[in-house]
Amino acid sequence: MKILFDERQLLHAPLDYFRQGKQIPHPEQPQRAVLLRDALVADGHRLVQPGDHGTGPIKAVHDAGYVDFFETAWERWAAYADGDTIAVPNYHVSHGLNRLPTGIVGQLGYYTTDTACPVTPGTRDAIYWSAQAAIDGAHRLIGGEDLVYSLCRPPGHHASRMNSNGFCFFNNAAIAAHHLRQKFERVMILDIDTHAGQGTQDIFYERGDVFFVSIHVDPSDYPPFFACYADERGRGAGLGASLNIVLDKGTEEPDILAGVDQMVAAAREFQADAVVVSLGFDMATDDPLSELTFSGTGFEGAAARIMALNLPTLLVQEGGYLGPSLANNAVQFLRAAETARRDI
Amino acid sequence: MKILFDERQLLHAPLDYFRQGKQIPHPEQPQRAVLLRDALVADGHRLVQPGDHGTGPIKAVHDAGYVDFFETAWERWAAYADGDTIAVPNYHVSHGLNRLPTGIVGQLGYYTTDTACPVTPGTRDAIYWSAQAAIDGAHRLIGGEDLVYSLCRPPGHHASRMNSNGFCFFNNAAIAAHHLRQKFERVMILDIDTHAGQGTQDIFYERGDVFFVSIHVDPSDYPPFFACYADERGRGAGLGASLNIVLDKGTEEPDILAGVDQMVAAAREFQADAVVVSLGFDMATDDPLSELTFSGTGFEGAAARIMALNLPTLLVQEGGYLGPSLANNAVQFLRAAETARRDI
Repeated sequence: MKILFDERQLLHAPLDYFRQGKQIPHPEQPQRAVLLRDALVADGHRLVQPGDHGTGPIKAVHDAGYVDFFETAWERWAAYADGDTIAVPNYHVSHGLNRLPTGIVGQLGYYTTDTACPVTPGTRDAIYWSAQAAIDGAHRLIGGEDLVYSLCRPPGHHASRMNSNGFCFFNNAAIAAHHLRQKFERVMILDIDTHAGQGTQDIFYERGDVFFVSIHVDPSDYPPFFACYADERGRGAGLGASLNIVLDKGTEEPDILAGVDQMVAAAREFQADAVVVSLGFDMATDDPLSELTFSGTGFEGAAARIMALNLPTLLVQEGGYLGPSLANNAVQFLRAAETARRDI
Repeated sequence: MKILFDERQLLHAPLDYFRQGKQIPHPEQPQRAVLLRDALVADGHRLVQPGDHGTGPIKAVHDAGYVDFFETAWERWAAYADGDTIAVPNYHVSHGLNRLPTGIVGQLGYYTTDTACPVTPGTRDAIYWSAQAAIDGAHRLIGGEDLVYSLCRPPGHHASRMNSNGFCFFNNAAIAAHHLRQKFERVMILDIDTHAGQGTQDIFYERGDVFFVSIHVDPSDYPPFFACYADERGRGAGLGASLNIVLDKGTEEPDILAGVDQMVAAAREFQADAVVVSLGFDMATDDPLSELTFSGTGFEGAAARIMALNLPTLLVQEGGYLGPSLANNAVQFLRAAETARRDI
């Protein structure tokens, strides 16, 4: 299938990550995308340059000030910090009054919620083109294509309307899902990353036209911590259009696949007419961030179940880190998805 | 005058502070309190052990879960992190759904908003006794004493109902002000720390019985960034009972003292019957965090103006860091306050 990817997505390159009191190597490395791209091309998929759809589709989902912030954030930070460090926030908004300050230090804290989303010289281009890969995928589904893979990196599902979180800046899947609404009435987002896509849920929490379902490790003691508990079902017009399938740490493949069955059942019940898959590979047993037991065969099974919906489907890359099976899990998922589609 | 201080307040001892992308020495050191105590005792003030008033008065202002969190936070973190680091958060709540997680890592992020409030082995005792120093001061005013100095350290005015921020855990001044309401109908908080007391403002923002006025550097590009702008005047029953006097960086002593005149005028207009002074010394020109020009003579002038209100007055120590004039500014302020009171 087509792999939408732009080389500029590699330009966001944070080395360190201040986590739990110390600096550790940052897990969300450009090399992730290189491995995925190369393995998929070697497996016969076709690399395609995404078109440039501008910031309009991004601002349709994100706060405009948030999007514009990244246009100059690095330059402002570099001028402030004399090039001494990359831009990592250490002040944040919280409960209570939260006004937008004018300075770069405060704005960095206003728009980010953790230390995992540093702004580096290449961040703006990388997140812009990661979003374009998703938008172009949605554009292709609108144009009649059936199954496309947007190799989004940096990932997106933790980013909310106006904040970055958990390696994510622009919510690629949410941007794509909203974009798909130009043609499709009812869009389903199936998030199978091991971390809850709380940013995606937040964006659509009060909307009934995009159904968000996520399977993930229980957030009560695992990132993103503050949302995507099992009792969250949406609000207002969105009531019933959010679903969180919460797994205990250590959950094994059969139970996870049973959860995927629930996700697919929810999509059927919703009568979705297009699907966005937030496709993380960090459920894999050997993923550096994994707390679950899941294999390449499991990813094949998940792909087959999702493709059985027989709907136009956009695969949007989310997490999955530099473990031994990363590239192979992508190969198996995409191969199974394509096979299932041909079988229909 | 009486100096309320407990040695256990020295037990919170963070060495480092992750700030703007790198580790720097933490400015809020126990040595601050040692310098203040010793200089004031040498100047003839009397050190008094605060009584233990329990957590009741603290929970009257703070969320009970937040207060209880610190009872075990260090032990939980140490068990989690194998004693490898002190507890510095790197995940935070933000705009959107903010559920309280159960694990220590998430709770640390839920209850704190920056990296400036690490939890160390002695944090619980230090913040508890810092609050007791304030409560005992309020208790003494209720009992008829006229002018007391609570040497609170760690400071408090950035802490809100359920989050720590900017070196502050429990909001000592807010706890004292609320406690004073047992006797006094209208309590005035005058915050002359160089940073806005946004935690104090947040706690009383919808209350009309405690008036909060703060003079501080413009938060638009300076901590605490997200609140205490000049247009914030309170809400609901508290409308009109918040006042922010915002200074440009570089403002000099005469203009700052004119601001203090405004604060005192607001107290008169409010017809306050007791005063809590959030007493920071970081407006001083040589304070390591200062952006203003202010001297020991300036602190004398501020003290004289505040004491001219002729109201029962509790001085609660806030910021003021390890610059050359720290102890002397305290000596001059307290001496001027006592002199003014005797003159009335």
